[in-house]
Amino acid sequence: MTTEKLTIGIVIFPGFAGLDVVGPHEVLARTGSRMLLMARTTEAVASNDRLLLIPDVDFDHAPPLDVLVVPGGPGQTAAMDDSTIISFIRERAASARYVLGVCTGTLLLAQAGVVTGRRATTHWLAQQELARLGALAVPDRVVWSDNIVTGAGVSAGIDAALALVERLFSREACELIQLAIEYDPQPPTDAGHPSRARPELVDKLKRGSRFHERPG
Amino acid sequence: MTTEKLTIGIVIFPGFAGLDVVGPHEVLARTGSRMLLMARTTEAVASNDRLLLIPDVDFDHAPPLDVLVVPGGPGQTAAMDDSTIISFIRERAASARYVLGVCTGTLLLAQAGVVTGRRATTHWLAQQELARLGALAVPDRVVWSDNIVTGAGVSAGIDAALALVERLFSREACELIQLAIEYDPQPPTDAGHPSRARPELVDKLKRGSRFHERPG
Repeated sequence: MTTEKLTIGIVIFPGFAGLDVVGPHEVLARTGSRMLLMARTTEAVASNDRLLLIPDVDFDHAPPLDVLVVPGGPGQTAAMDDSTIISFIRERAASARYVLGVCTGTLLLAQAGVVTGRRATTHWLAQQELARLGALAVPDRVVWSDNIVTGAGVSAGIDAALALVERLFSREACELIQLAIEYDPQPPTDAGHPSRARPELVDKLKRGSRFHERPG
Repeated sequence: MTTEKLTIGIVIFPGFAGLDVVGPHEVLARTGSRMLLMARTTEAVASNDRLLLIPDVDFDHAPPLDVLVVPGGPGQTAAMDDSTIISFIRERAASARYVLGVCTGTLLLAQAGVVTGRRATTHWLAQQELARLGALAVPDRVVWSDNIVTGAGVSAGIDAALALVERLFSREACELIQLAIEYDPQPPTDAGHPSRARPELVDKLKRGSRFHERPG
């Protein structure tokens, strides 16, 4: 769809959420870009639900990136304290043309200082945590701040990646990929957002969340 | 979300589409079920865009399944002539409680005789091919026929998997997972379905499709 071949790197770490990675991967690979999964080593990395992905390259050998993608998932909590991952994100975000944060991947961007004082979004359960980490948390599905685009929870990585395709290439490129992956969603219920889900379901997920503040 | 732990197996083969696999995996794993990627061997299998997944089990060692999931992708064409894969699908579909076909995975179900004379859907580019293979091709996003649910192109695996969660467990289980993955889609364009995409874009994908009938 273009003569320019971009290099797009996705950071993976133990406990990533599968769809956070593969939603953007499916969309961005269709631009003809070189796609790389990047991790601490090239050993297989397990998602939160035991999907085993093999990285293409370790952090030390990752080439210069046009786009850095940072997914989230339950493993984000441990990754926050992993200076290797956070330093890698900080360095590569500074040199990439664009940065895409998905779900709680945006918290990793915040930890690395990439979205400090910037508008950004994350999973609805983590919006307060994102603000606490210094970003201007905006509870929208896709949020732009200069060359940084962030998506809300899990499935929003598809929407954010499509928005990035439009910015990187063209409206037509975005339309073609949306048509190719038949992204014409018809969710079975209206519970996809906390503003419309039944309050007891929102409460149930809040209570079970790792971002839930427990009394005492 | 239930005391019943199901075993859900997803067939993978070279050239699968990543999102065909991981969309349903993300949704179905959240039911607490045992998720298994099943392939000819336990060597890593590459998707069409070189995502490398490690299978959990080979076909010969796959346990009895409550749910069989069959994804599609460009590798579906070669898989149609692979008697090992087609026989495995035929046998496991006959004994599973439910079968989920995603995208051109439904063509594999058709080749195995699983949807012969049944209502089923597939990627919009493959609807005619599905009919030619003996199914009653219905161009809807999610189609049920008894215990078989099929989804349209690529991203429709998310919708079809959520529909399956409702049938397997409950409406509430479906709502909770939809809320947890924040499946509140806001596609950037209206091009996700051929009925609304610009005709020149539909034509462009048709001409590039492996299902396009070339003159002569």
